[in-house]
Amino acid sequence: MTTEITTDLTEAVVDSFEGTPDPRLRELLGSLTRHLHAFVRETEPTMAEWERAIDFLTATGQTCTDTRQEFVLLSDVLGVSMLVETINGDRGGDATESTVLGPFHMTESPARALGADIDLVGSGEPCVVSGRVLSRDGTPLPGAVLDVWQANAEGYYDVQQPEVQPAGNGRGLFTADDEGRFWFRTCVPSPYPIPTDGPVGDLLRATARESYRPAHIHFIVSAEGHAPVTTHIFVAGSDHLDSDAVFAVKKSLVQDFTETDDPVLAREFGIPNPFRHARFDLVLNTLDPNTLDPNTLDSERP
Amino acid sequence: MTTEITTDLTEAVVDSFEGTPDPRLRELLGSLTRHLHAFVRETEPTMAEWERAIDFLTATGQTCTDTRQEFVLLSDVLGVSMLVETINGDRGGDATESTVLGPFHMTESPARALGADIDLVGSGEPCVVSGRVLSRDGTPLPGAVLDVWQANAEGYYDVQQPEVQPAGNGRGLFTADDEGRFWFRTCVPSPYPIPTDGPVGDLLRATARESYRPAHIHFIVSAEGHAPVTTHIFVAGSDHLDSDAVFAVKKSLVQDFTETDDPVLAREFGIPNPFRHARFDLVLNTLDPNTLDPNTLDSERP
Repeated sequence: MTTEITTDLTEAVVDSFEGTPDPRLRELLGSLTRHLHAFVRETEPTMAEWERAIDFLTATGQTCTDTRQEFVLLSDVLGVSMLVETINGDRGGDATESTVLGPFHMTESPARALGADIDLVGSGEPCVVSGRVLSRDGTPLPGAVLDVWQANAEGYYDVQQPEVQPAGNGRGLFTADDEGRFWFRTCVPSPYPIPTDGPVGDLLRATARESYRPAHIHFIVSAEGHAPVTTHIFVAGSDHLDSDAVFAVKKSLVQDFTETDDPVLAREFGIPNPFRHARFDLVLNTLDPNTLDPNTLDSERP
Repeated sequence: MTTEITTDLTEAVVDSFEGTPDPRLRELLGSLTRHLHAFVRETEPTMAEWERAIDFLTATGQTCTDTRQEFVLLSDVLGVSMLVETINGDRGGDATESTVLGPFHMTESPARALGADIDLVGSGEPCVVSGRVLSRDGTPLPGAVLDVWQANAEGYYDVQQPEVQPAGNGRGLFTADDEGRFWFRTCVPSPYPIPTDGPVGDLLRATARESYRPAHIHFIVSAEGHAPVTTHIFVAGSDHLDSDAVFAVKKSLVQDFTETDDPVLAREFGIPNPFRHARFDLVLNTLDPNTLDPNTLDSERP
C-alpha cells in the first residue's frame, strides 16, 4: 500500500459527502471520515481484526433493548460520553458541573411529592437528600424540576431487576417549592459495577479494567430561563472515586452524606434518628434569551 | 471547556488501557481513543447529535441478521472496508488486486463441478466465465479453490430474496483443474443499489449519495502456499464504474464480457450461440513460508 492510494481513498469518501444538504452533517461526516481513516492507517488492522471489530459493534447493537443501552455504555467506557458532556455542559462560572447521563435514564421517572421516599422497598441505609435549586446569582428557582434516579443498595437500577424492584424504584420527578427547595428520602447508594455481561464487559475483561463506579445519585435539573444540567452527586468517601469506569467524577460533585442527629427532621421524614443527610444546592446558568440551548433539538425550537 | 480538561480526559482513557495483557489490543484501543476523541474535540457534537449517533449505531446493529450485515455495509460506504482491504491485500507486483468482501458473503457457497451454471433460475443474459489461477511466475495452480458469488440480473443476492431465489443461486465453490483452469456459466451481473431500507440507506439519502454499485462478480481465490485474494471482477462498460457506493473499483479488475461467436464452446456449455464470455486469469502471491498470513486468526495458526 502506498500512502497516496489510501489518502486518495480518504479524499474520495470525504468528497462523496460534498452534496449533503445539511452543512453540519457534511462537516460531521467529513471529520469522522478523516479521523476514522487516520486510525486505520495508523494501526493497519488485519482482516481478522476488522472482522472482530464488526462482530463487536454488531453484538453491541444487538445487546440494546428498551431497558439497556450498550452503545451508551461503550461511549461511557471510552470516555466519549464524558468528553461530549464536558464540551456541552461546562458553561463556566460556579454553576453545578455536569457529568454523564449514563445508560439507565431509559424510563420516565414518576412524579413524586417533596419528601417522598424513592427507595420503594426500603432495602438500604435510609437517608435524606435536600437542598435548593438556584440561579448563579443566588436567586432561588421555584418550580425547578429535578429528575432523580439511582441504583439500590445492591447497585442495581429498577430496569435491571424487573422481578425484584418495582418499576420506578430509585426514581422520582420532583418540583422545587416556592423557595426553590427540594427534599426527598432514599437509601444511600452503593458503588456498583457497570453491566459486564455484554460486549462492553468483554472489553473491560480483555483490558483488565475496573468495572466499578463510585456511589452516586443522578440528577437532571431544569428551570425556566436556565440551561438544564445533567449531573451526579457522588457520595464522599465512596470506593472507586479515583477509578470510575466511565471517567465521570468531578471534585465539585462529591458531597458528604453526613451522619445527622436531628429528631425533628427525622420525625418529619419518618426516618429513624440519627440518619444520613446530604445537603447541597444545584446552581443553574441562565439562558441568554438570544442563545438557543444547543441541546434542544431543532424540532423543539420555538 | 478548556483544552487541558479534555486532553487530560483523553490521557486518562488511554492510561486505563495500560494494563491490557495483549500489546496489540492495547495499541489498537489507545489509537482508537486518541482518534475518536480528536474527532469529538474537532466537531464538538451537541448532546442531541451524540444521541442521534448512539441511535444510529444501535439501529445499525439491530438491522444485522444471519443474512444481512449492516455494519459491514456502513464500513463499506465510509470507505473503511476498502482501506483495510487495500492495506492488507496490496502485496505489490502483478498479482490480482484485492477489493472489498462486501456484506453478502454470509452463506457457504455450494461446491459445484467446473462448467456448472450458478444461475439456477436462468433469469439473466447467459454468459461463460473462464480463466486460470496462476502463481506470479505464471505457474498454474491445480486445485486452487474459487469461491464465487454474485447478484442475479435484477441485482439481488439469494439471501435477499429467499422466497424468489433458491439458496445458493449465484454462488459456487469451484476447484481448478489439473492445469489451474476454471470455467462456469452464470448470467451477466447488473449494477444494483446496496440495501437502502436500513440505517445505511438513511445515511445515503441524508447525504444525497449514490447507492449503486457497478456490475461485478465476487471471488475469493485460494491455493496452497499462496496468499488468498478477496476481489471482484467488474463488467467493463457497466454504469457506476466511476461512482461505486463502496469505493471498490480498481482499474485492473475491470474485464470485458465479450460477445462471442463460438458454436463449439456454446455447445460445450449448453448455451445459445453467440454468447457473452469473460476470460481472465487470477494471479496469487506466494506465501513466504516464514511469513504467516496476517489474515489468519491466532487460533488457526500452526
